[in-house]
Amino acid sequence: MEPCTYVIFGATGNLSKIKLMPALYHLEVAGLLPEGTKIIASGRRAWTLEKLHQEARAMIRAKARNGLDEAVFARFQARLSYFQGDLSVADMYPALAALFASHSEYPGNVAFYMAIRPADFGTVVENLSTHQLLDETHGWRRVIIEKPFGYDLESAHALQQRLMRYLREEQIFRIDHYLGKGTVRNVQVFRFANVMLEPLWNRNYIDHVQITHSENLGVGSRADYYDGAGAMRDMIQSHLLQLLTLVAMEPPASMEAEALRNEKVKVLQSIRSIPSDAVHAQTYRAQYTSGRIQGEKTKAYLDEDNVPPCSVTETYAAMKLYIDNWRWAGVPFYLRTGKRMAENQSVVSICFKAPPKQFFRTSQLQKMRPNWVLLGIQPCAYLKLEMTVKEPGMEMHTRQTTLDANLREGDVPATDAYEDLLLDVIKGDQSLFLRYDEVEAAWRVVDPVLRVWAMERDYIPTYPAGSWGPEESRRLFEREDQNWRDSMNPATKN
Amino acid sequence: MEPCTYVIFGATGNLSKIKLMPALYHLEVAGLLPEGTKIIASGRRAWTLEKLHQEARAMIRAKARNGLDEAVFARFQARLSYFQGDLSVADMYPALAALFASHSEYPGNVAFYMAIRPADFGTVVENLSTHQLLDETHGWRRVIIEKPFGYDLESAHALQQRLMRYLREEQIFRIDHYLGKGTVRNVQVFRFANVMLEPLWNRNYIDHVQITHSENLGVGSRADYYDGAGAMRDMIQSHLLQLLTLVAMEPPASMEAEALRNEKVKVLQSIRSIPSDAVHAQTYRAQYTSGRIQGEKTKAYLDEDNVPPCSVTETYAAMKLYIDNWRWAGVPFYLRTGKRMAENQSVVSICFKAPPKQFFRTSQLQKMRPNWVLLGIQPCAYLKLEMTVKEPGMEMHTRQTTLDANLREGDVPATDAYEDLLLDVIKGDQSLFLRYDEVEAAWRVVDPVLRVWAMERDYIPTYPAGSWGPEESRRLFEREDQNWRDSMNPATKN
Repeated sequence: MEPCTYVIFGATGNLSKIKLMPALYHLEVAGLLPEGTKIIASGRRAWTLEKLHQEARAMIRAKARNGLDEAVFARFQARLSYFQGDLSVADMYPALAALFASHSEYPGNVAFYMAIRPADFGTVVENLSTHQLLDETHGWRRVIIEKPFGYDLESAHALQQRLMRYLREEQIFRIDHYLGKGTVRNVQVFRFANVMLEPLWNRNYIDHVQITHSENLGVGSRADYYDGAGAMRDMIQSHLLQLLTLVAMEPPASMEAEALRNEKVKVLQSIRSIPSDAVHAQTYRAQYTSGRIQGEKTKAYLDEDNVPPCSVTETYAAMKLYIDNWRWAGVPFYLRTGKRMAENQSVVSICFKAPPKQFFRTSQLQKMRPNWVLLGIQPCAYLKLEMTVKEPGMEMHTRQTTLDANLREGDVPATDAYEDLLLDVIKGDQSLFLRYDEVEAAWRVVDPVLRVWAMERDYIPTYPAGSWGPEESRRLFEREDQNWRDSMNPATKN
Repeated sequence: MEPCTYVIFGATGNLSKIKLMPALYHLEVAGLLPEGTKIIASGRRAWTLEKLHQEARAMIRAKARNGLDEAVFARFQARLSYFQGDLSVADMYPALAALFASHSEYPGNVAFYMAIRPADFGTVVENLSTHQLLDETHGWRRVIIEKPFGYDLESAHALQQRLMRYLREEQIFRIDHYLGKGTVRNVQVFRFANVMLEPLWNRNYIDHVQITHSENLGVGSRADYYDGAGAMRDMIQSHLLQLLTLVAMEPPASMEAEALRNEKVKVLQSIRSIPSDAVHAQTYRAQYTSGRIQGEKTKAYLDEDNVPPCSVTETYAAMKLYIDNWRWAGVPFYLRTGKRMAENQSVVSICFKAPPKQFFRTSQLQKMRPNWVLLGIQPCAYLKLEMTVKEPGMEMHTRQTTLDANLREGDVPATDAYEDLLLDVIKGDQSLFLRYDEVEAAWRVVDPVLRVWAMERDYIPTYPAGSWGPEESRRLFEREDQNWRDSMNPATKN
């Protein structure tokens, strides 16, 4: 790996504090930052280098898995410099260019991390280009862009058009930190390193798939952004559709970035589009009211800071999708996310069909249940298979049992998704980043829904904070025996 | 259920003490013995009723799962009577007939349990018939026969011919206590109550199957019987081939006895017979020498009591079988059993093929391994799936993990196989008993091997007590990467 200069725009902000600085530090701990790598933290604030060092120390102390190691931190600190500048002021760019020109210690490979408002992505890239900061004469130039990429299909397209004037696709690293999570990557291993799954992984045996991301947290201080986005844009268009592609894709030609992304985009392009008159039947949205989370009273969404009094932004969104291909035709995929839900839980739940013949009676306590495969993403990374076995005792009765594997066995501490991803940028490995056609296809899936919801602005159903969302969202299911798979649901228990 | 009279021939012997009496007592505890059920214990010894009660109390105290409950034992004891007689003396049978005739409290349904030498089965049944004890005017008559049923194909056939003169097939309960074990029955539930397995359960995905029954114990005091039998007759012809039928059979039309046994016999009849010139390639036998079991020195088989000094009886037998049907063509089934082995273990181990494409590197510590399904029968009843998952950390390396379900969860104590089976006799349910065509087909499988072995009486390989048997038995495998699956084998560990 060649060294590079990591330029973080927005380095005094939250993402940098909570994720980027600690991730770079952990790469330092692991000895994975190539010799000579430099980090330029850039922000509007008038930080001195000393202040940056103090701040970095505090960020890392708060997040380092094994505490801050002084020797490692000394090495890390030596890579850091601060560059003050306002991205909206044109002066900044020549100054940055001058910095590079005058300091030969900065490696010629440069990664620009856009930890800034999405609305500014285009302008910043344009300015970087204007001032030759994207010139690749002395090394590669890569740009890391946080989601959301666009606000809808049209704006995503416009942003892409703008970026493509200055960058090639392989220079753009559209980050989705969900894809960096170990368990998300485990989906690939689970599916393609075990011969037992592939024969089952299709419409013949799978009844339906549920992908759930629920959060305890409310909107917090992010209403400025969130109220304009909502759960569908914030979670489903990005993370949950990405998870869906990993669960549903065909075996790729290889695990290389292009091969993988070719298969993922095929899944997204095979999703049956929802006509506007089917939006009500296939989706559900709601907003949290006050309630209790872990015993504490919490505010309604409408009472949160910076939420407009009549907002109908959804904090809960659920949708049913069909993938019209040979493997999945007729198998519904249920995507669901919400804030202020009963639990923090990201899980892929795969429900199998019932055996074609019922030979055995169940005991009185339990109904006969189908097999489930559960892939826990967070907070616990697990792999569970729910199977039916004989109940102990003389009667030929059955019961459900769970075959359970904790995926974080042993003493290897979990790495944060950003560590993998920041390292992949240096390597130039785009396999965990989104290609534009993926982003576009994902927008095509949710766009018709967002358009209908945008027109219906006089009412949104509610759910109390601390619940599993509105009971009425069950109407997305096709049969009485189907239901959301969550811990309030008896089927979750052993 | 109707009440019956249980007549136990050989009631003063070991089987009765260790298994039958405690099993009947446990049925009493569970309230499963029909009102009016009587038990006539019969033996040559001059026991009084009081002595029988004492003995029964001692037997049960030694074996009762929750200790002897006086109230229950009082009920149980009231069912007991003792009948002294020598089965080889013709007088005994009219006396037994007279007992029935004179005591109206004995229910007209009678089950005769032959806890006696197999050589006597024919004669006893003949005598019972001669003295009208098999007359069904006042209720059914059933005969329970312990294994071995015959000594080889020819003698089994002769015994069957003899029995059929006096009994109909549905009156004969050929017991194989292995089939009464919960986990053995769990094989059926596992296969047919889970939609996830059936698609995988065939030659397309399964590489090979191993069925192992290993014992710590040596021949003990049973050399009289065992030296004439050997491991092939004692274990493989009966228990292990039965297990094989359950693993390999097609889904039956129902779980009724005839439907089940129809499928089991089809498996046995589909086993490719071993021509005499292939016996060496497909089988292996050996005899234990001295060694150590759990730290204690143990004798060689040849030094055990009542073993002839030049015996070449096998205490270890292994064989490879092919089931020539659509499901299993080309998939080897390895059966293996031995005394004085490293562990007590009965387990069905199913090895899957490798995925068609290897996408991922394994870590340096582990080789890429296929999926395994492990069904523990005893001493632990478990269900394990070994799968490949991603190793924690940033590299896309894989490792093996075990999804584990203890089948004896909760506080339901395990019932003994004999409880189920003795109750099934009362119910008239033959599903866990062997039909004659099964026994015959099983003899057809092992007979050619036994004939070759019988001719080669000058040498038998050995293995030290406490080992997993002779290393050379690995030659039964077809490829270098295949091996016996046991706990000394790294593939067993997580």
